[in-house]
Amino acid sequence: MDRRELIKLSAGAMLAGMVSGAAAAPAGKAGKQVEQWGVFEAAFPGPATGNPFVEVQFGARFTFGHRTVEVAGFYDGDGTYKVRFSPDTAGQWSYETSSNVKELTGQSGGFSCTAAAGGDHGPVLTAHNFHFQYADATPYFPFGTTCYSYGFIGEPYAGETLKNLREAGFNKVRICLLPKPLGKLQPVAMPYERVGEALPPGAENLADSSTSKEQFDLARFNPAYFQQFELRVQALMEAGIEADVILFHPYDAWGFKAMGPEADDRYLRYAVARLSAYRNVWWSIANEYDLVRSKTMADWDRFFRIVQESDPHSRLRSIHHSHVPYDHSKPWCTHASLQEYDFERSGERLAAWNKPIIYDEIQYEGNIARRWGNLSPEEMTYRFWRATVYGVYATHGETYMSTDGGPVWSDAGRLHGSSPARITYLRKLLERTGTTGLMAAEKPYYLNAGNPGQVILYYFDYHCAGEYEFPLPGNTKFKATMIDPWAMTETPLAGVYSGKSKITLTGRPHMAVLFERAGA
Amino acid sequence: MDRRELIKLSAGAMLAGMVSGAAAAPAGKAGKQVEQWGVFEAAFPGPATGNPFVEVQFGARFTFGHRTVEVAGFYDGDGTYKVRFSPDTAGQWSYETSSNVKELTGQSGGFSCTAAAGGDHGPVLTAHNFHFQYADATPYFPFGTTCYSYGFIGEPYAGETLKNLREAGFNKVRICLLPKPLGKLQPVAMPYERVGEALPPGAENLADSSTSKEQFDLARFNPAYFQQFELRVQALMEAGIEADVILFHPYDAWGFKAMGPEADDRYLRYAVARLSAYRNVWWSIANEYDLVRSKTMADWDRFFRIVQESDPHSRLRSIHHSHVPYDHSKPWCTHASLQEYDFERSGERLAAWNKPIIYDEIQYEGNIARRWGNLSPEEMTYRFWRATVYGVYATHGETYMSTDGGPVWSDAGRLHGSSPARITYLRKLLERTGTTGLMAAEKPYYLNAGNPGQVILYYFDYHCAGEYEFPLPGNTKFKATMIDPWAMTETPLAGVYSGKSKITLTGRPHMAVLFERAGA
Repeated sequence: MDRRELIKLSAGAMLAGMVSGAAAAPAGKAGKQVEQWGVFEAAFPGPATGNPFVEVQFGARFTFGHRTVEVAGFYDGDGTYKVRFSPDTAGQWSYETSSNVKELTGQSGGFSCTAAAGGDHGPVLTAHNFHFQYADATPYFPFGTTCYSYGFIGEPYAGETLKNLREAGFNKVRICLLPKPLGKLQPVAMPYERVGEALPPGAENLADSSTSKEQFDLARFNPAYFQQFELRVQALMEAGIEADVILFHPYDAWGFKAMGPEADDRYLRYAVARLSAYRNVWWSIANEYDLVRSKTMADWDRFFRIVQESDPHSRLRSIHHSHVPYDHSKPWCTHASLQEYDFERSGERLAAWNKPIIYDEIQYEGNIARRWGNLSPEEMTYRFWRATVYGVYATHGETYMSTDGGPVWSDAGRLHGSSPARITYLRKLLERTGTTGLMAAEKPYYLNAGNPGQVILYYFDYHCAGEYEFPLPGNTKFKATMIDPWAMTETPLAGVYSGKSKITLTGRPHMAVLFERAGA
Repeated sequence: MDRRELIKLSAGAMLAGMVSGAAAAPAGKAGKQVEQWGVFEAAFPGPATGNPFVEVQFGARFTFGHRTVEVAGFYDGDGTYKVRFSPDTAGQWSYETSSNVKELTGQSGGFSCTAAAGGDHGPVLTAHNFHFQYADATPYFPFGTTCYSYGFIGEPYAGETLKNLREAGFNKVRICLLPKPLGKLQPVAMPYERVGEALPPGAENLADSSTSKEQFDLARFNPAYFQQFELRVQALMEAGIEADVILFHPYDAWGFKAMGPEADDRYLRYAVARLSAYRNVWWSIANEYDLVRSKTMADWDRFFRIVQESDPHSRLRSIHHSHVPYDHSKPWCTHASLQEYDFERSGERLAAWNKPIIYDEIQYEGNIARRWGNLSPEEMTYRFWRATVYGVYATHGETYMSTDGGPVWSDAGRLHGSSPARITYLRKLLERTGTTGLMAAEKPYYLNAGNPGQVILYYFDYHCAGEYEFPLPGNTKFKATMIDPWAMTETPLAGVYSGKSKITLTGRPHMAVLFERAGA
């Protein structure tokens, strides 16, 4: 069996898994039930000849009372056309298909949208100007990580990734939709049909984007590739983990970073039609966009607009840079996604862009020789704390050298570091406070952020103060807790604090003090 | 006995001590011997009436072969006029006095200058563009600290300071010439004669510069104040410690920071006449000059020129800022003295100023509430390492809260921290390598500095690399040593390294690797 046959086999197996999946609801008969923010899917037979990817237009109009939502469908191979939609409101929905092909036109049906099950808070949206919350208004604080290859690396690594993500407690992960070279490993499939035979494994130098000899038909997607990617996204969704889907990136061995505008735009529309109904999807237009030399700023802007216009669910949209920050004030950006760790500039950035900021690459915990990949776990932990008291968010990454031939965490697999436990501790601490998102104090003497009448979190960074007179605002009475961010210990301080409050501190670095409004 | 009498008594005692001191050689008879870079002093009786400080001009011309050096003298009280001179060349020197007073005119004498004793390398000068060396060409790397009040705080604190300086191994200390408030302690004397009675101790709020009720005659110095200061400077000299004498500062309870130009200039000339002959004296025109609101930039420039013109020994000259850096490219600055710790900007500063840089205030190890005064010892240590691999120098300071009513180290007294041992370890490491001063690598992948064919010092800062391929320059063969800057341990690595050399590292942060030319 050659690789091509293997991929076809796996595509078939995955499609079957998809249809029977808990969250995807195949339609065709009335009376079907879908949970609020779940995935409704309808499949229809249609033409399998010619090139359905470019010759067939297909979509559906979903109706709920006075509302209508136009949703693009997609060709899923083997003569099957699908449309996916995630209803945001409980009640009775109906739909009717449209197409340039007769048999796909005027197909109609409906479903009953039931209340969301416990634990499903809906998709994440921006909120309170600089923060995020779920659709049900539960605050969401992104404390994510990066596993670029989770979506196409296959087992056992994808399963290990999910297990480690869950155990570590990350609630967001950055994943690439297009494949990237994996050293001695291979992506499970390719997103496009090959032209000619596949090269035997090992014949390509996957680490060098200039040397792949394989050719692809950029007008014909490989549905199996996307099907298995969707299973990975769905698994994240079920685990409560947001999938920050990276649409373009420069780590390419096959030419997918330079397909040209027609293929780029077709790819984007296909990706949005397939993935947007998953409520945990965010769109990251690119990773290190400025390293993709074949594209211009006009291309990136156009990609944003295509995603914005073609996504009926309006998932979050951002773009991530290497050296040249994008102008995140552009209206199609929902939040800024940065590769920086100069959190002290957060104030000016928040003011300039007027939207939330996630420092999505703050270097990696690890021990590789590259200087971006060898932070100590302590340094990674303290960067998260610094981000927090600057009123912004950060994203973890890990690059410990592999000792067993498996991938490093930044691609997929197993976590080895000790910062993730501390990162999740910080997220849970924020969630416990009831804040809707911390705002950095202006010109603080020591770094702190909060919602001043409710909660104030001080982080002393490298300062080893033995005491400090905290200038607590207003007449609010606070209780205080001493926090060791590394040991993850909390020491409640006796008494109630108001106004200028001198407190004896440990004299050790990297300590924090949390003030919470006292009493009910 | 009131305070005034106490001061007079102490002045007399100190004057006697001075004359019998090992380094000061009273003259008046021929055949006197003075070591090279030692202090020659000649004293003459003269008018004690009127105001000798302003009415009597007095100095001497020192002659060595074809060279003559004009040296200003000073009135030392009690009808005694002195002139001090530090000969830089062994051989026979002669002098003749000049004055606007007959009895102080035309006094002549001489001395034989003998070779410097072992351990006396002479005064420190700038060298190799960005570095320092002693007059005998021995490299000097400033690894100093700050004890502002050492010169006027008196015993037991001054003695403790000296003992701690020696034991810690600092080779430079920043000290204020004018007094600063000391909380519940009192300066041993005042530099000017009081007008009216001294207030009883405790009557002044010394911490508040606006409230001292004492008045001083700014045309009449108090020689006792300067005499005891000189004893402190001489003790430093004998311990091999450079005295970075701060001439003005903003920490003032008595109005000395706003005396007006006539008194300022007289003070500078008096200070230079008294102190310049001590070979360990450096002139720091001010500490935090920009916080002295009563003076303009033209004043600071004038002070530099006065010191430059009136100092026959051309001691080093700098000025230290708080928020607004001085233009250190001005020709009278011998080196830059900064209050910063953004060492990453050293390259542009070295290029702009073209002279050595000492980051003379990089915050303080300690535990006080002020954010500049509570670095961990690790952080202080790593700042010294960062400075070193950026090709610049740094100065220590310490502010642990006093638990016994004594001063904190930044004034005087006892060291409590654990960074000084590491700082001195780094100095001795540099001295051992034989470098004349490290130059930072241009655009280094990991921070390093060296003299490329001789020695290269890498410091990995927060990077926990598990391995790295060092790009060693040229064909030079190096031996390598792994260094733990905090543990102060050195692990020689087996073998000889040349060109691209991959070395297994510890994967721990804040490690260093030293390459030294192999063989003879």
